[in-house]
Amino acid sequence: MLYWLDVLGTAVFAISGVLLAGKLRMDPFGVLVLGVVTAIGGGTIRDMALNHGPAFWVRDPTDLVVAMVTCCVTIMVVRHPRRLPKWILPVLDAIGLSVFVGIGVDKAFLSGTGPLVAICMGVITGVGGGIIRDILAREIPMILRTEVYATACIAGGIVHATAFYQFGISSIDAMVMGMGVTLAIRLAAIRWHLKLPTFELDSSSQDSKQR
Amino acid sequence: MLYWLDVLGTAVFAISGVLLAGKLRMDPFGVLVLGVVTAIGGGTIRDMALNHGPAFWVRDPTDLVVAMVTCCVTIMVVRHPRRLPKWILPVLDAIGLSVFVGIGVDKAFLSGTGPLVAICMGVITGVGGGIIRDILAREIPMILRTEVYATACIAGGIVHATAFYQFGISSIDAMVMGMGVTLAIRLAAIRWHLKLPTFELDSSSQDSKQR
Amino acid sequence: MLYWLDVLGTAVFAISGVLLAGKLRMDPFGVLVLGVVTAIGGGTIRDMALNHGPAFWVRDPTDLVVAMVTCCVTIMVVRHPRRLPKWILPVLDAIGLSVFVGIGVDKAFLSGTGPLVAICMGVITGVGGGIIRDILAREIPMILRTEVYATACIAGGIVHATAFYQFGISSIDAMVMGMGVTLAIRLAAIRWHLKLPTFELDSSSQDSKQR
Repeated sequence: MLYWLDVLGTAVFAISGVLLAGKLRMDPFGVLVLGVVTAIGGGTIRDMALNHGPAFWVRDPTDLVVAMVTCCVTIMVVRHPRRLPKWILPVLDAIGLSVFVGIGVDKAFLSGTGPLVAICMGVITGVGGGIIRDILAREIPMILRTEVYATACIAGGIVHATAFYQFGISSIDAMVMGMGVTLAIRLAAIRWHLKLPTFELDSSSQDSKQR
Repeated sequence: MLYWLDVLGTAVFAISGVLLAGKLRMDPFGVLVLGVVTAIGGGTIRDMALNHGPAFWVRDPTDLVVAMVTCCVTIMVVRHPRRLPKWILPVLDAIGLSVFVGIGVDKAFLSGTGPLVAICMGVITGVGGGIIRDILAREIPMILRTEVYATACIAGGIVHATAFYQFGISSIDAMVMGMGVTLAIRLAAIRWHLKLPTFELDSSSQDSKQR
Repeated sequence: MLYWLDVLGTAVFAISGVLLAGKLRMDPFGVLVLGVVTAIGGGTIRDMALNHGPAFWVRDPTDLVVAMVTCCVTIMVVRHPRRLPKWILPVLDAIGLSVFVGIGVDKAFLSGTGPLVAICMGVITGVGGGIIRDILAREIPMILRTEVYATACIAGGIVHATAFYQFGISSIDAMVMGMGVTLAIRLAAIRWHLKLPTFELDSSSQDSKQR
């Protein structure tokens, strides 16, 4: 079950990379690179920081293959994303995100970290790929800006880590609880366009930055 | 002493991330992510390149906690950065920078690298977080452009590495010397607006780039 | 021979970083940082993902020294890149690229990875530095967009990996074959301005992204 959710998450993230690339007049192989980086970037940063052996796709290239195939299919099939129902991609993305956060927290605990670091690893796994995608496309990462995206990851990670670390709930049950919270918050945010109030400083902040 | 300087440096870098985020209309949790990445990003890249165990904040989350608490406090307290005396943030930043460079050089020597690599690790530790911050905010990293920022790091790193490696000065004394040089150059640059002449090619450089 | 090609590739990539920096009014030490990152960035990401000891320039700083010296010489010597024959830099860059892809694939096989991961490592090694360079200069990475750049890396990597893994050709012969393919495709693309048709979605793709 988790395995298929992981495959689904990887595929959805790859699609989101390809769709963004579609706005940038890229070479098809450039599109492939952008899609694959979006799908596996977050987990790669997590594995580099944990330093617990090679990156996950080096040890087991399943996710790499899934990302590549998804990119190729998307490049060949999708021409008119307008015709997809609008809610499909965000909902799939929310599923992928919640799975990735859960996997990140779980892998961190397996490496013996404490709960705070585990939550960070969950957030990195969930948002890392999308941030790299937006950097490559020269956009301010949307993930940091809107629709309680980082918020959902952090909340789900806290629930997962607390359940496992404080209450001794089994690894898999804790993961399901955390994933449920991330998913619920994201779906609610998509459905009702929830936003947290933005943090904004008065315009003089520019003066005070000074570096 | 070094411990508290490290905490101070981490806090100042986190504040600089939050202040930049304040211009970008981010979600509060997005601000938290940006602030934390600014504070610990440089050291993380250093640890990944040295490959000497997990990143420093995975082994000991003190700096992570410091960065998070600083971000939360800054988000809640700071509304009008204009009212801070203008020199405070740059001076604190210079202190943090010199500490980070010193720690980076020191950790590299502990890993058994030569002086050249150690200087690079000092520069990475010092400027890495700020560069990631500026990339996420879609600015050309100021660190590479102005106010002898990279210059100060390189000079301090050279003094530190030379003192330790060539003259056999004790690890801690060499670090203090290097940190003093970095700090002095940055403070002088802030006080008298020192700049190196910029390197600029004639406008046809664009033609010759060709890739 | 391979050693000198590696040195040449490193030097050319460093020059391309310095030339780009020349458009950005950077501090000379900022230029040095940008040039060095361009030259060694791709291999560093590869080594972090393989997690097979410290980054290559930590173990043996030769490439680091080459990159630094090249940057310094370029900064001092080049003022009017217009006067260089237009084809020189792209051709040198194509040589460097093909060497880097070959080295990346080879190092991955030495770490015991399968062919798919090895091809990815070749692509990362070849294009990583240039992508970081363009991100720092706030450009959409040209490598993903034009002139069959990613395409050449992928094709060369596939030939190299297939020759070595499927047909049991010796490591060095397979590398030469792969490098030849990458180089030939890039040179042909430069000579005849080859481009693949760009992948582009209709303008509504923006609506469907939704994150």
